[in-house]
Amino acid sequence: MSTAFDFTPLVPANVPAGAAKWTGSPKYNFTGGNNDGEELPLDGLIDAANSVLKREGRTLATYGLESGPQGYRALRDFLVQKLKRDAGITCTADEILITSGSLQGLDLVNGVMLTHGDTVIIEQDCYQGSINRLTRLGVTPVGIPLDRDGMRMDALANALDDLRRRGIKPKYIYTIPTVQNPTGTILPESRRVEMLKLAGAHGVPIFEDDCYCDLIWDHKRPPALHAMSRSANVIHIGSFSKSIAPALRVGYIVAPWGILSRMLATKFDAGSGALEQMVLAEYCTPHFTAHVPVLTRGLRKKLDTLMESLNEQFGTAAEFEEPKGGIFLWVKLPDNVDTLKLYQPALQAGVAINPGPEWSVDKAHSKSRMRLCFASPTHEEIRQGVAKLAEVCHREFGVPTRISNVAR
Amino acid sequence: MSTAFDFTPLVPANVPAGAAKWTGSPKYNFTGGNNDGEELPLDGLIDAANSVLKREGRTLATYGLESGPQGYRALRDFLVQKLKRDAGITCTADEILITSGSLQGLDLVNGVMLTHGDTVIIEQDCYQGSINRLTRLGVTPVGIPLDRDGMRMDALANALDDLRRRGIKPKYIYTIPTVQNPTGTILPESRRVEMLKLAGAHGVPIFEDDCYCDLIWDHKRPPALHAMSRSANVIHIGSFSKSIAPALRVGYIVAPWGILSRMLATKFDAGSGALEQMVLAEYCTPHFTAHVPVLTRGLRKKLDTLMESLNEQFGTAAEFEEPKGGIFLWVKLPDNVDTLKLYQPALQAGVAINPGPEWSVDKAHSKSRMRLCFASPTHEEIRQGVAKLAEVCHREFGVPTRISNVAR
Repeated sequence: MSTAFDFTPLVPANVPAGAAKWTGSPKYNFTGGNNDGEELPLDGLIDAANSVLKREGRTLATYGLESGPQGYRALRDFLVQKLKRDAGITCTADEILITSGSLQGLDLVNGVMLTHGDTVIIEQDCYQGSINRLTRLGVTPVGIPLDRDGMRMDALANALDDLRRRGIKPKYIYTIPTVQNPTGTILPESRRVEMLKLAGAHGVPIFEDDCYCDLIWDHKRPPALHAMSRSANVIHIGSFSKSIAPALRVGYIVAPWGILSRMLATKFDAGSGALEQMVLAEYCTPHFTAHVPVLTRGLRKKLDTLMESLNEQFGTAAEFEEPKGGIFLWVKLPDNVDTLKLYQPALQAGVAINPGPEWSVDKAHSKSRMRLCFASPTHEEIRQGVAKLAEVCHREFGVPTRISNVAR
Repeated sequence: MSTAFDFTPLVPANVPAGAAKWTGSPKYNFTGGNNDGEELPLDGLIDAANSVLKREGRTLATYGLESGPQGYRALRDFLVQKLKRDAGITCTADEILITSGSLQGLDLVNGVMLTHGDTVIIEQDCYQGSINRLTRLGVTPVGIPLDRDGMRMDALANALDDLRRRGIKPKYIYTIPTVQNPTGTILPESRRVEMLKLAGAHGVPIFEDDCYCDLIWDHKRPPALHAMSRSANVIHIGSFSKSIAPALRVGYIVAPWGILSRMLATKFDAGSGALEQMVLAEYCTPHFTAHVPVLTRGLRKKLDTLMESLNEQFGTAAEFEEPKGGIFLWVKLPDNVDTLKLYQPALQAGVAINPGPEWSVDKAHSKSRMRLCFASPTHEEIRQGVAKLAEVCHREFGVPTRISNVAR
């Protein structure tokens, strides 16, 4: 055996360092958009796989099935109905592009909109995958603070004015208005009206990421920004990852054909996975509306367990607003806690958390914050994991000082 | 309704024009890597879907199932066996990364190896998707001529010497050595030895695309370059698109961890479609070896029909070498035929072809050539489509002059 060839000198400088080898999931995993395996509608998915494969499985021999490059037609037809019913969106199947998860949606939208040096507006605390994509593209995100009702419109107005004064026109306003990640807030209809007004006045389009919108405790949501816009200036993306199963990797983009056709022209993957599209269409068309409340009821119970455990283990040291839906809780710890520094010792104790600064463009604001995902761990794992985390946090940062009124 | 928002001014200049709306498949479709729907192992796939979902379907609630980011472990385990048995490759599951089709494999390899201005070596006539990716990246492909045994090693040696004289070090030698696209040639073992020697002498790695390797009429193939390399300088990619079903979008990369880990670090999609990986692993582990000969027997018959039809309709005006496997035939028409100009009138007559210049970096050499894919159309469609094509070609270019010895 000769000496192994060294690829390293050939790798361009901007390529990230190699990934670490995967060594299994942490025992108490409060990260990732994983869902509750017990709530997965498995029997329904198996029945769907059987019926759709028996009926039209041979179309798998053709790229794009018999539906062309925008995705399986029956799934787009389901989405036309679902988006109308749930989000008030009026669109045709031709205005929908099925993607490999909403992550590919992010990539395709960014691909046709952004170039190095651009500026965009996003929520200050925001989905890590969206922030990282902007960083990699060399795009500057301007973060808008949030309150209990999501993005603050006064702050958005100021930011837009400020950018205008500086001669900068942001490429889009990116928002997760319906169960915001990580804050779990829902932007009320009145703020949506305001955002659309501001966007219109500044000639800036809106990029609406609605991937958590199905997971709302009381199932009440304002119409999508896409539905409320009177000038077709909103690109809307969504996903089946949160409502059915994340490993399926099926999302979608809803946008006017003029810009959607550009995205389609840059989708060089010969289509997204067809079997998953077929199974989803076959399952969701009859069962989606019945499945969602079952799922959210289970998620809501887990949130309760998480909030109870935090109150019990951290007391007043853990502050949070109850989210209106979703699979995560955004938690504020005392100011002296640096969650980036809490991360490693917590992981060593078997507890994985999302440190706040990875989910925010304001590193100071988010320093003592963390995101805890509650859908995947069991109730028992939530309780034990939070207890472990409190232990580690106490050891590393001296807080919480008391647990269940017992001094540590 | 206000005036619709115009996204156009926001789109960067390098974004391609919008895609045309899909209006259905042409009647006689000789393009695309589509397969024979009749040969799809549908019952087996249905059984596999049932058994794997019943056994471990709830893992779909977790990104990456319980296998981590490199893909479903059982599928990687199958590949370890398959690659050893068929291609002589010795690797572990840790050296395999499951991708969304081999197209994502191309993107990931290019992403960690190439930067604007680089040079690579490829086969002169080559897969359009590979050529286009290089063009988009601003990478210069140096095309090496092929003969009946694939890439010519004398020409490769000259090209490497010439580049060295000019101070250019190509980033890789890209080759489809086993059923080359579009020529259908198989690089013999002796040439593989030579290619590895040349690559070693010039310090250039090899990028081996083996996506058609399962479709060989006599099921005899030389070992993969990856298997023959003694310095681990070969990145190998493959696919289930050709052997099972293209719409499933599952491929894989086999590479040393040092460079594979870089690719994994740039795979930002939260995993490839898990259901498709699960069904493939469950089906292929017991059935792959029995399925492939059934599939190739059917493909071989279609190739016969295509070659007979060409002989009948084009006579000596259509020259071709019988491919050793695969799903396409590379056809040379008389010099006065420009297949780029044949394309549109043929399509209007319902016949879709791949014009040669889109599958070659030598536009003059490929001007009168075309690629005809034969897996998807029926025998009857092949016969009718070739007859139509001969009609159109005669009308546009005056050839063929005689059909079945009858002057047109």
